[in-house]
Amino acid sequence: MGSFAGHAMPGAFVLFLGLWWGLKFSLLHLTQKNKYRESTLTREVQKRLEIVEALIVMTFASVGAVSMQIAGAKLPLYNYTESHWSDLKNWQHCTMFMFFGLAGTVSLIVHVTAAAPLPLDTLMLGLAFLNKGLLISYHIHGRAMVDITLHQLLVLSIYSDALILFLEVFYRGNLVLELMRSTVSILQGTWYWQIGFVLYPPRGPQWDLEDHSNMMFVVMCFSWHLMSAVLCAGLIYGIISCVVCSKRTSPMQVGLLEKKTESEDEVM
Amino acid sequence: MGSFAGHAMPGAFVLFLGLWWGLKFSLLHLTQKNKYRESTLTREVQKRLEIVEALIVMTFASVGAVSMQIAGAKLPLYNYTESHWSDLKNWQHCTMFMFFGLAGTVSLIVHVTAAAPLPLDTLMLGLAFLNKGLLISYHIHGRAMVDITLHQLLVLSIYSDALILFLEVFYRGNLVLELMRSTVSILQGTWYWQIGFVLYPPRGPQWDLEDHSNMMFVVMCFSWHLMSAVLCAGLIYGIISCVVCSKRTSPMQVGLLEKKTESEDEVM
Amino acid sequence: MGSFAGHAMPGAFVLFLGLWWGLKFSLLHLTQKNKYRESTLTREVQKRLEIVEALIVMTFASVGAVSMQIAGAKLPLYNYTESHWSDLKNWQHCTMFMFFGLAGTVSLIVHVTAAAPLPLDTLMLGLAFLNKGLLISYHIHGRAMVDITLHQLLVLSIYSDALILFLEVFYRGNLVLELMRSTVSILQGTWYWQIGFVLYPPRGPQWDLEDHSNMMFVVMCFSWHLMSAVLCAGLIYGIISCVVCSKRTSPMQVGLLEKKTESEDEVM
Amino acid sequence: MGSFAGHAMPGAFVLFLGLWWGLKFSLLHLTQKNKYRESTLTREVQKRLEIVEALIVMTFASVGAVSMQIAGAKLPLYNYTESHWSDLKNWQHCTMFMFFGLAGTVSLIVHVTAAAPLPLDTLMLGLAFLNKGLLISYHIHGRAMVDITLHQLLVLSIYSDALILFLEVFYRGNLVLELMRSTVSILQGTWYWQIGFVLYPPRGPQWDLEDHSNMMFVVMCFSWHLMSAVLCAGLIYGIISCVVCSKRTSPMQVGLLEKKTESEDEVM
Repeated sequence: MGSFAGHAMPGAFVLFLGLWWGLKFSLLHLTQKNKYRESTLTREVQKRLEIVEALIVMTFASVGAVSMQIAGAKLPLYNYTESHWSDLKNWQHCTMFMFFGLAGTVSLIVHVTAAAPLPLDTLMLGLAFLNKGLLISYHIHGRAMVDITLHQLLVLSIYSDALILFLEVFYRGNLVLELMRSTVSILQGTWYWQIGFVLYPPRGPQWDLEDHSNMMFVVMCFSWHLMSAVLCAGLIYGIISCVVCSKRTSPMQVGLLEKKTESEDEVM
Repeated sequence: MGSFAGHAMPGAFVLFLGLWWGLKFSLLHLTQKNKYRESTLTREVQKRLEIVEALIVMTFASVGAVSMQIAGAKLPLYNYTESHWSDLKNWQHCTMFMFFGLAGTVSLIVHVTAAAPLPLDTLMLGLAFLNKGLLISYHIHGRAMVDITLHQLLVLSIYSDALILFLEVFYRGNLVLELMRSTVSILQGTWYWQIGFVLYPPRGPQWDLEDHSNMMFVVMCFSWHLMSAVLCAGLIYGIISCVVCSKRTSPMQVGLLEKKTESEDEVM
Repeated sequence: MGSFAGHAMPGAFVLFLGLWWGLKFSLLHLTQKNKYRESTLTREVQKRLEIVEALIVMTFASVGAVSMQIAGAKLPLYNYTESHWSDLKNWQHCTMFMFFGLAGTVSLIVHVTAAAPLPLDTLMLGLAFLNKGLLISYHIHGRAMVDITLHQLLVLSIYSDALILFLEVFYRGNLVLELMRSTVSILQGTWYWQIGFVLYPPRGPQWDLEDHSNMMFVVMCFSWHLMSAVLCAGLIYGIISCVVCSKRTSPMQVGLLEKKTESEDEVM
Repeated sequence: MGSFAGHAMPGAFVLFLGLWWGLKFSLLHLTQKNKYRESTLTREVQKRLEIVEALIVMTFASVGAVSMQIAGAKLPLYNYTESHWSDLKNWQHCTMFMFFGLAGTVSLIVHVTAAAPLPLDTLMLGLAFLNKGLLISYHIHGRAMVDITLHQLLVLSIYSDALILFLEVFYRGNLVLELMRSTVSILQGTWYWQIGFVLYPPRGPQWDLEDHSNMMFVVMCFSWHLMSAVLCAGLIYGIISCVVCSKRTSPMQVGLLEKKTESEDEVM
């Protein structure tokens, strides 16, 4: 996706997912913890949220895949007259989007029909991220140093997302893992934008992609993005915590120690 | 196995195993979940399936090992008159098959005599895959770029299989792991065929094994194989799910939420 | 931190943390095991210890970050007139300290307000170590062999700390993990000092940083630091064990086997 | 340890440990499973076996460390007159033995006094293997190809041992892990001997350490050692299984299915 827009689009997609997950999991856990609504109602709401999420992922992925087709991913793949692959990059990105589309479809099937085992939705999403990381890591062969560093850090955040999703297959409903997933996705989204700004600066001079101090700045920049993502996810959790608590029917009279034990149980 | 047949044979073996596992685990879990037959009967059936599987693995491995001996793996290994190793490749492949034969034998002992601890069957199969991955990764030293990429991706799928089998030692009977094992084995089987087609094209011109765009196409191809494997395993599960449900003695009256909890329990 | 003091300061910080953790966790577990005080009191003491620890971490991190600012980390980061990054190293170290400050702040919020889930304190501390390891590993690009080895071993101890802290998110209150965290932090602290002594020897001649036998000595040195750290953590646990046991109100009459089972339960 | 004896000695030590562990864990599990003796008696026997094992490890390690001192590890380490490290290799091996001595001492303290938490014995042994692997991996810098491969495979078996021991800290008393530990130690022991035979052949010509086919033979050889180790551990378990069953007071009347469930419980 050799353009600014080509990095901004997937970045916006993942950033949106990260913010959405932060909202969804904070809301679900805090309403459950404070017994704000009845348990059955919350479960029904959760099911609807999952279906909406699956539809959003499918829409995003379809738009991405189709836009890649329009951008030039044509059949046949191999241009026999000139003996080279045509539009390989567009096809690669199209493949990535197709995996997310598949993950969304599986999630929809899981939550609508209940025919498939429940953790398949996180498993397929993890597989989509793993596949994306694999494609990008073979992408960056033989580029400039700063370019490689930028993409290595992107791949790191993608693999972290995949790892967290695979862990969630076994530890479903763990709030800490869910907040980490949200954080890493926000990081990944903003980092896509950062890559766009460094490689295709909208204004100002080009970066020297072989300069060592530029590479060190880029790594430090990743730290700042990570910190911002942590603060962002924390802020979402904090705001929802305040909103949910202020709407509670019964006044908040629970002691400190009791609550502590409760949150401890959530992890065990 | 420097030929098309040399990659097609192990590919067919692993592909068969993957499809078989998909069938077996889908069948066992769905009959158990729907209480289609009594629990004791299912356990007896499971034991017989395991014994049949062990015998199939042993047969395949014996055929492979013997065919490698016929293909030229002769004793003595070292040719003293000409001071070089004779038929080292055939011996390497023979070693791989012997490990699968050992895994089959252990599985047979475990399920027939009940003298050994039950998880030894997955452990030995994991060890056979690990050993295969180790031998192949030292195999590819100093080859062409596309050749190395092809084998790296093969080794990736082999190690994934080994990892899943080792996890199954500790989480025995987890449906998600079992479906992943099936998926990765189908992927590995079709990928063996792909390697054969790329390195020894039955017709048409040879591939340029040092071309960068060929390497990128190969990686994308691996993504497509992965997606096909996922769809294939999903299809098997879906078909068996329909067959089992239509044969149920009692009509299907279970609500959505109840089923959801049930499948959640299977993972925890 | 191209100076002896630049390595001694973070070393002293981590070494202090390691010793503190050794003391804290030994004390908490031994008083709990021997029922020296009532359970509720111990929990209150634990909460206060956590708050004190969070305040200490915040103070250390603030002092570190501010001292880096004084040492030269000025805004703007980029010197446009001379076209280079100004004071990038100071900003990098400042970023590391800021992460520890954030971890301390989160720990304070968790233990004072009980609004956030409890394991967030170890998670954020693990993230701070992970970020530190990441920054240092991109730091050492293109240096001399002994210098690289020294920093690789440092990064190894930092990542071990991060790994142990991430494991503690899921296995909270496991004594073995807590003693390992203490040990690895003591190792990391003394190793910082060792790096300072090797790279900036206060007296005597400079080290030949490309000599192979120097590299091998450095690795062996790391082994000795590890052994000292193990002995140090063991000594702390032993001394507190003696002090707590001698202060017991009831005489120690518990048989060997009973105690063994008890400590076994702590791990399971 | 640039000699045949220098590889044979640690090999014999680890091989002995592997065989001993195979015997010990088979015996303990089979007597427990078959209720051959009363449970309390078995626990007492287990405690004595652990103490004997700790004493054996300490003796071996002391003999090794002292023999290294005699072989030339003298103080001061640094020869100032000639400006080089004297006897660095002997000191490195001495350090390895000292770690095993420390592990033995900790194991003795754990099982005699019951003052320390029980899993410290496997943790320290795992640390001793980890340290040994770390020292050897920095050892092999810049050697011939076959030499590097031989030591890489050795390091692989050492790290596997460390990994299994760290897993045992959390899953104590898991028969499958204990049999794996035994297998990997037997493999490591025989592989030490193999390294000795390849690098310092007692008779016959020297090996060509840069030959590619020699490297491939060495990797295949490792596979065979692994298979032999698996068979050896299986044989020990089988023989003890027969001996214990034939000595049972009550006749063996337990059905197949019942036993199967029992061994399944051991793993869960």
